[in-house]
Amino acid sequence: MQIACLQAAGTPGDVEANLAALDAACAEAAAHGADLLVTDEMFVTGYDIGELVHELAREDLLARVAEIARRHAIAVVAGLPELDGAACYNTAALVGPDGALLARHRKAHLFGALDRAVFAAGDELVTLVDLADVRIALLICYDVEFPESVRAAAAGGAHVVLVPTAQMEPFGFVADQLIRVRAWENQVYVAYVNHDGREGSLEYVGSSSVVGPSGEVLAAAGHGDVLLYASIDPAVVAEQQEANPYLADRRPELYGGLTRP
Amino acid sequence: MQIACLQAAGTPGDVEANLAALDAACAEAAAHGADLLVTDEMFVTGYDIGELVHELAREDLLARVAEIARRHAIAVVAGLPELDGAACYNTAALVGPDGALLARHRKAHLFGALDRAVFAAGDELVTLVDLADVRIALLICYDVEFPESVRAAAAGGAHVVLVPTAQMEPFGFVADQLIRVRAWENQVYVAYVNHDGREGSLEYVGSSSVVGPSGEVLAAAGHGDVLLYASIDPAVVAEQQEANPYLADRRPELYGGLTRP
Repeated sequence: MQIACLQAAGTPGDVEANLAALDAACAEAAAHGADLLVTDEMFVTGYDIGELVHELAREDLLARVAEIARRHAIAVVAGLPELDGAACYNTAALVGPDGALLARHRKAHLFGALDRAVFAAGDELVTLVDLADVRIALLICYDVEFPESVRAAAAGGAHVVLVPTAQMEPFGFVADQLIRVRAWENQVYVAYVNHDGREGSLEYVGSSSVVGPSGEVLAAAGHGDVLLYASIDPAVVAEQQEANPYLADRRPELYGGLTRP
Repeated sequence: MQIACLQAAGTPGDVEANLAALDAACAEAAAHGADLLVTDEMFVTGYDIGELVHELAREDLLARVAEIARRHAIAVVAGLPELDGAACYNTAALVGPDGALLARHRKAHLFGALDRAVFAAGDELVTLVDLADVRIALLICYDVEFPESVRAAAAGGAHVVLVPTAQMEPFGFVADQLIRVRAWENQVYVAYVNHDGREGSLEYVGSSSVVGPSGEVLAAAGHGDVLLYASIDPAVVAEQQEANPYLADRRPELYGGLTRP
C-alpha cells in the first residue's frame, strides 16, 4: 500500500479553502498511485481556532471528505471535529476509496488547555481497521507520545500507525526523536503528519515523517507544504518483528501496575 | 547527588582484574566527589562468557563489591551474577557507602540465547530504592528497551533510572536514540552504562550516556574506557514533570490490554 501524507499550513477556520486543498492533494496523490492520503490533525477546520470549531462541526464535514475520496478513488484519513450530542471530539476519520466511513478515532489523550477547552476525550486507546492487506492504527498527536498507545496498536496487529498531528514549538523533540523510537520499539511503520506555519498562538514544527519498522526514516519533510510518499509492506513488519522480537519478549504478567491510576 | 558511570571493556572471566578496575574507578570517582558509581552489566565477571558465569557466581562477589564500596565510602551499583538455588540471575546490586546491600534488580526481560542459555528471568519489573533524597530505579540492558519498565519506574516516583547494559552492534539505535526518549516520555534522568570493546562474539557500541528529564544529554561517551559524571536533582524532575505532564495525562483506565499475554 502506498500512502501520501499531506503536511500543510491550511487555512484556519475556512472549511471551503481546506476542502479545496484536500481535493487538490487527493488528485495529486491519486495520480502518483497512492492508495491512501493522510491529513494533519483537524485539517478540515484548523486546530487552534477556539470555540469556532463547535460551529464548524455542525456542518456534515465527513460527507464532504467522503465525496472527495470517492471522486478521486483514494482512501482518506482526515482530521476534523466530530459532534456527538453535547460533546465535540478531536477525530481522525478513515473513509474508503468508495467514500464509506471505515473507522474513526477520537483523541484519547487531550493536550493541555488547547484541547480541553473545546474537546471531550475519546475512550478508545487506539482504533484499528483493515484496509486491503494492511492493518491500520489511528492515533492523534499527543496520543503517540504515550508509549502505551503505540504498544496497544502493535499488540493488536497493526502494520502502520497513522498520526495526524498539530505539533508546535518547543516540542520538536517528538517529531525529531520520539517517532523513530515508537516505530523501533514496536517494529511497525509510523506516519506522523503535521501542520506547518503559524496558527493562532502556535508555531508548528512541520517535520512530518514516515518511519519504517526498524526506525529508519523513509520520508521526511522540513517546513513547507509537502506531500510525502511511502510504501507500507506487511511482510516487512512480520520480518522485523521476528528479527527484533520486542512484542514476543514482553512480560505482560508484570505490567499490571501500568493500569493503576 | 553526583553519579559516576564506568564504561569499560573489562576483562571477561577474570574477577580479580575486574574488581581491581572497580577499586580504581571507585577511588577516582570518590576523589571527584561522586556519591554513587554505576558499572555496566555483569561487570564483575564479564557478560558473554557462557557457562563460566555459573562457576564464578559461586564466589561471594557481593561481599567483594561491598568491601570496595565501604573502603571508598561510595555507593556502588554493580553488575554481577547471583545464584539463588539452582537459578542464576543477571543482577544489578546496589550497596551503600557503608557496604550494606540496599537493593538488587534481576533482569526481567531476557535477551535472546545470550541470556537464556545461562540466566533465569527476574520477576520484578523494576526495583526502586531510596538513597539520600534520590529515588533510584534499577533496570538492566534489554529491560530499558521496553517502555513499560521505565514507565513503572516513573510511576513509582523514580528520579533516576540506572541501567547497566551490554549493548552490542548492530543495536546502536538504543544508545543513540531510545535512551533520550525514555527520559523525555517520563521526565526522569536515565543513566545508560555500557561495555566497550570486544567480548566473545560481541562488539560493544560504547556510547554510554546520562540524559536529563527533558531528553537533554548531560554526559556521553563514544568508545573507550570512560568515567562519566552527572548530577541528579529531584527538584528538576518535579519541575519537568509539571511542565510536561505525561504522567498526569496518562489514561491508565484504558491500558488494560497491555497486561494481556
